[in-house]
Amino acid sequence: MSRQFPSDNVGIIKPQTAHFDEELTLRSGKSLNGFDLVFETYGELNSSKSNAILICHALSGDHHAAGYHSESDAKSGWWDTCIGPGKAIDTNHFFVVSLNNLGGCAGSTGPASIDPTTGKYFGPDFPVVTVRDWVNSQAMLSDKLGIQKWAAVVGGSLGGMQVMRWAISYPERIEHAICIAAAPKLSAQNIAFNEVARQSITNDANFHGGRYLDANTYPKQGLMLARMVGHITYLSDSAMGSKFGKDSTLFDPSGDKFGRDLRSGTLSFGFDVDFQVESYLQYQGERFSENFDANTYLLMTKALDYFDPAIDFGGDLSRAFEQASCKFLIMSFSTDWRFPPARSREIVEHLLKAKKDISYLEIDADQGHDSFLLPIPRYIDGFKSYLARVFEELSSDAA
Amino acid sequence: MSRQFPSDNVGIIKPQTAHFDEELTLRSGKSLNGFDLVFETYGELNSSKSNAILICHALSGDHHAAGYHSESDAKSGWWDTCIGPGKAIDTNHFFVVSLNNLGGCAGSTGPASIDPTTGKYFGPDFPVVTVRDWVNSQAMLSDKLGIQKWAAVVGGSLGGMQVMRWAISYPERIEHAICIAAAPKLSAQNIAFNEVARQSITNDANFHGGRYLDANTYPKQGLMLARMVGHITYLSDSAMGSKFGKDSTLFDPSGDKFGRDLRSGTLSFGFDVDFQVESYLQYQGERFSENFDANTYLLMTKALDYFDPAIDFGGDLSRAFEQASCKFLIMSFSTDWRFPPARSREIVEHLLKAKKDISYLEIDADQGHDSFLLPIPRYIDGFKSYLARVFEELSSDAA
Repeated sequence: MSRQFPSDNVGIIKPQTAHFDEELTLRSGKSLNGFDLVFETYGELNSSKSNAILICHALSGDHHAAGYHSESDAKSGWWDTCIGPGKAIDTNHFFVVSLNNLGGCAGSTGPASIDPTTGKYFGPDFPVVTVRDWVNSQAMLSDKLGIQKWAAVVGGSLGGMQVMRWAISYPERIEHAICIAAAPKLSAQNIAFNEVARQSITNDANFHGGRYLDANTYPKQGLMLARMVGHITYLSDSAMGSKFGKDSTLFDPSGDKFGRDLRSGTLSFGFDVDFQVESYLQYQGERFSENFDANTYLLMTKALDYFDPAIDFGGDLSRAFEQASCKFLIMSFSTDWRFPPARSREIVEHLLKAKKDISYLEIDADQGHDSFLLPIPRYIDGFKSYLARVFEELSSDAA
Repeated sequence: MSRQFPSDNVGIIKPQTAHFDEELTLRSGKSLNGFDLVFETYGELNSSKSNAILICHALSGDHHAAGYHSESDAKSGWWDTCIGPGKAIDTNHFFVVSLNNLGGCAGSTGPASIDPTTGKYFGPDFPVVTVRDWVNSQAMLSDKLGIQKWAAVVGGSLGGMQVMRWAISYPERIEHAICIAAAPKLSAQNIAFNEVARQSITNDANFHGGRYLDANTYPKQGLMLARMVGHITYLSDSAMGSKFGKDSTLFDPSGDKFGRDLRSGTLSFGFDVDFQVESYLQYQGERFSENFDANTYLLMTKALDYFDPAIDFGGDLSRAFEQASCKFLIMSFSTDWRFPPARSREIVEHLLKAKKDISYLEIDADQGHDSFLLPIPRYIDGFKSYLARVFEELSSDAA
């Protein structure tokens, strides 16, 4: 008997692989002689191919955004909250494409792939890829799928940066840009945290200059630490307080939520884990390290650091946005301290200066940067009603 | 010819060592069979011994708070901005005592000291010390110096936590408590960052389970990384932006300060340092790692995590503060996101509930947590006028 999925779930999904023989010249000047992109699709492409939505993933994301890979799969895709029949990105209306970016480690060509010219792992020889390179490769995937123009390109965090790049680089191929919890470029603090993550990985004795797969190992501790640092920046202080302070009667009988729950009820007076928050972060970091390639992590953080769409326009983001012809939905979350609302408001200001059609939604939410992945009613409602209008538009265009 | 110091500098200072034969039982239940505390003093103790101020240091601080150790010394003590003739802590008025805490690595007994019972480095066998243990050992130092009651106990950050503990544990021995940029206890986020720092150290291949000195090495990379993480949390996002964005014409011709100055003018498209902020943090981390003991760093972070003066009072901080009989000055800084003003306001609220005499100063400052070390006019003025009143009080008491 087959498993029953909820009616708003896309169900079992089979990833596909697109192979490209073409040479792709990257922003760095280096090039790739052919590459694979793994992707999934949800919903049906209409006959005019006008209802396609592209999902761009964030630092540790992949192509598996919705549904399940098998009947026994315990975990659904990373954006299952937002993608499915009747959900914000409604698969009854849209044909949704979600890919793993170049340099990734979930099936697309990346450092953990075999370099066909050497027969060995790319490892540290895989070239640095930028947001622009990703978007160029996504445009090649669009061609292969026969999608001339996306009804919308959508992404959160690093995904939102790809959305901005789409709007600027391919104005004729995107109708709506939906950019969530992003920033026009990283701040010094953002870069600093990324550098800490990179150092943790490259300092690991098992990193072997990036050739750890050849040595049949991987920098587990370093990757774990990098993820722990990242994880802290994804959560708000108050969200961590609530998450790890639910039962904190020892420290917080007053009901304050400082997240000081102890793991075993007493202090160790040693260097073992004392607080739940430590054990949680370690556990999450460890799980992550078992499933993610360290060289990919390095690449993704550099893509973040380098992102600056204003760079070709004398540093003037408004001029960059003048290239765009799509409409924009920008969303941010009040307690996001990685890319705070102020950074989204910068995007909005430059879009206004460039006289673009924009909607901006700043959502009160306690969950920090991670909010874009969560079922926060005002967020989901705003997201859903915007895309409902997009669907109306394309239906009336077709009529 | 001897070096001329500015008239508001305490000049050349010789550290002293106090040896204690007494056994000190620690909060963990373990005990130390005798120990040393290294300290410095500035100014003169008056005949009634009523003008003494104790300085409590923060995580990476030591006893060398003001002046110089030699004529050729390039760097003055860590709080030279605030301690000296005519400064906020005016050595024309006060006798200032500053010590290196137990477990430290600047001369007081700590993990890098020789354990007299084994003839070997304590290393990881040095017991976990808490803020309470420090304050108890500071009280023993007070006895040795013949100081029955401190005119004030003063500290920032972890130093401010020692100030609170003094007020609660030794109400009869403290006239004024000056607690700057502190918190009543750490949040889950604070603890999480400390755990990342500890993991970076203990993961280092040169940590050797804490016995690195026996192996004639030290966990340089790990300590460097721990310091980098700490350093990020000491600075505000905007302060980092200004600090590393001064010449950022490439990225910020509009004069925005996002701190994206490049180190060499171009992107490397590799994993070398690209941005000034990375190279600065690495340099600072490296310097720190050469001068600080890794086991001490572990101890200090645990003392922070464990600090919770309400713990003996059913978690009710007001009840803890009811024990105190001193007056309080609490100060916080607007952009401090390690211990934000909201955390100082908690302290204030609980002090009000306990009906204590308090002054609270929330200072607009761009420099984040580090503000307490910097010459910010409103801060220095408030600090100075408070202590001027303290001096008036004790002069009129004497009259």
